[in-house]
Amino acid sequence: MTGHIAVVGAGLVGSGWIIVFARAGLSVRVFDESQAIRARLVQELRENLEDLASHGLIDDVQGILDRIDICQSLESAVRGASYVQESVLERVDVKQAVCAALDRLLDERAIVGSSTSGIPASAFTEALTNRERFVVSHPVNPPYLVPVVEVVPAPWTAPETVEATCALMSEVGQVPVRVSREVEGFILNRLQGALLREAWALYEEGYASAEDIDKTVSEGLGLRWSFIGPFETIDLNAPGGVRDYAQRLGPLYLSIARSREDPRAWSDDLIGRVEDERRRAVALSDLPKRRTWRDRRLMALAAHKAAQRKQSST
Amino acid sequence: MTGHIAVVGAGLVGSGWIIVFARAGLSVRVFDESQAIRARLVQELRENLEDLASHGLIDDVQGILDRIDICQSLESAVRGASYVQESVLERVDVKQAVCAALDRLLDERAIVGSSTSGIPASAFTEALTNRERFVVSHPVNPPYLVPVVEVVPAPWTAPETVEATCALMSEVGQVPVRVSREVEGFILNRLQGALLREAWALYEEGYASAEDIDKTVSEGLGLRWSFIGPFETIDLNAPGGVRDYAQRLGPLYLSIARSREDPRAWSDDLIGRVEDERRRAVALSDLPKRRTWRDRRLMALAAHKAAQRKQSST
Repeated sequence: MTGHIAVVGAGLVGSGWIIVFARAGLSVRVFDESQAIRARLVQELRENLEDLASHGLIDDVQGILDRIDICQSLESAVRGASYVQESVLERVDVKQAVCAALDRLLDERAIVGSSTSGIPASAFTEALTNRERFVVSHPVNPPYLVPVVEVVPAPWTAPETVEATCALMSEVGQVPVRVSREVEGFILNRLQGALLREAWALYEEGYASAEDIDKTVSEGLGLRWSFIGPFETIDLNAPGGVRDYAQRLGPLYLSIARSREDPRAWSDDLIGRVEDERRRAVALSDLPKRRTWRDRRLMALAAHKAAQRKQSST
Repeated sequence: MTGHIAVVGAGLVGSGWIIVFARAGLSVRVFDESQAIRARLVQELRENLEDLASHGLIDDVQGILDRIDICQSLESAVRGASYVQESVLERVDVKQAVCAALDRLLDERAIVGSSTSGIPASAFTEALTNRERFVVSHPVNPPYLVPVVEVVPAPWTAPETVEATCALMSEVGQVPVRVSREVEGFILNRLQGALLREAWALYEEGYASAEDIDKTVSEGLGLRWSFIGPFETIDLNAPGGVRDYAQRLGPLYLSIARSREDPRAWSDDLIGRVEDERRRAVALSDLPKRRTWRDRRLMALAAHKAAQRKQSST
């Protein structure tokens, strides 16, 4: 790439992206409409980077900060950029306005990836002059610890836009997942939603506590899923691989699926009961502390996975 | 507990259980009908234990082996046992026959936990004299690396049987999950099945490759799920906790669920396409090697999680 990276919108998601790109050695120019966010951003980034350094995930905090410029206008951030990561508020009208502005400022060939977790690019890029260069690049928070990025084209997104975005994501150490076309929830939240749906239903029917349902994942299913996906898991779980597994267990899973033919909304009463159980486990006022704990566990896990990869490549 | 642990059936599942109990300092008496399995069992256990020792998960291999007796009859293994882990072939008639034999041999107060992954205890314990002391204790393979155990009572299982089984599982370092009553697939495989159903459907509809669907889990969802479950994950993912999350995202997930109202069998063609993709990734003849790799990754992850727990408790 010849130009820099622009990050537009520097809330939770955008500031995570800044670390991803700057950590990889790229120059990053940032704009956020909020003067308050711009004012405290460098200090926040420094704290996050020092946390990462203390887990052995990066070494040169100042070097990374030196590659980040906080700009006072959208134009200053975006002019000359090769790639823009749009991370503004998750609302169609806001995305439409920002993307229209980007459309006018973009360099010839620059690409815009949107961090949207739920709005398809077609909902806010249809009218743009350069709409073939807009795509969804959906991260998981925080992206510098969770590498997956879903790359989802609108019907008019050029294949080259998808290619270049995936290449950039790989280059900066993320793991791009190519979604062939738009689908509600993309891949990741559809998979999460499927598991959640069953979890809520089992809870509602009184089969187990939320804590125990959680444990079947955190002390069971989730261990393998932290380094191999669901298809590889079942491929390794039958002597003859995935076909063997599907033939043995397909009927069971079909029967389970048929017991869930009638999707139900999560009722207020149901939500209230899970909320009560969770609040007994962690008080509302302790949630921020617990999120910090989670992020440190993710850091330690990232360091662990990096060490495992290193070991298997030597 | 006053008596020893008996493990009946020493295939893949049973031999994993032997390690769990002996590692925890309990005396284990083992019987398997197969002379060939009995003959090679000690050597296999020694190899597995040495692998665990090399990952820092145990230290005294010989001490553990010294607590294991291989018995030449069912009676010799079971007489005087406080708890019997039944791990014979996953077939109703086989379970029925073995449980009937156990029923005659059991000490007063001894409990039998069945390793069955799919057959409810009610299908093979109804006619037994001591049926209130039979329960399902379903592990994940290998149980000495994946701690979850689903404890599932038949309608006639005594609450004390469930209590004592959960207490024993906790005592030996496993994580018991109490399932209130029988349900097809129990909790763990229902959750896995829900995620698999969506994964197969997305693949069938051409949204992504099996490899990329796998990556959304192994480089995304599965990271958090390796130490917190689905409810805690969403509880931490909205400022106001799980209620806040459910109110924001419930409608999206309901809409996703409604797009999957018609469960489909995995067709031969579909299975064949996933099989083809997996075989390009790992040849059938390389599956055993890949399973060894997976188990070493699970060992390294178990060591990592133990270190994290130690750190947060100091």
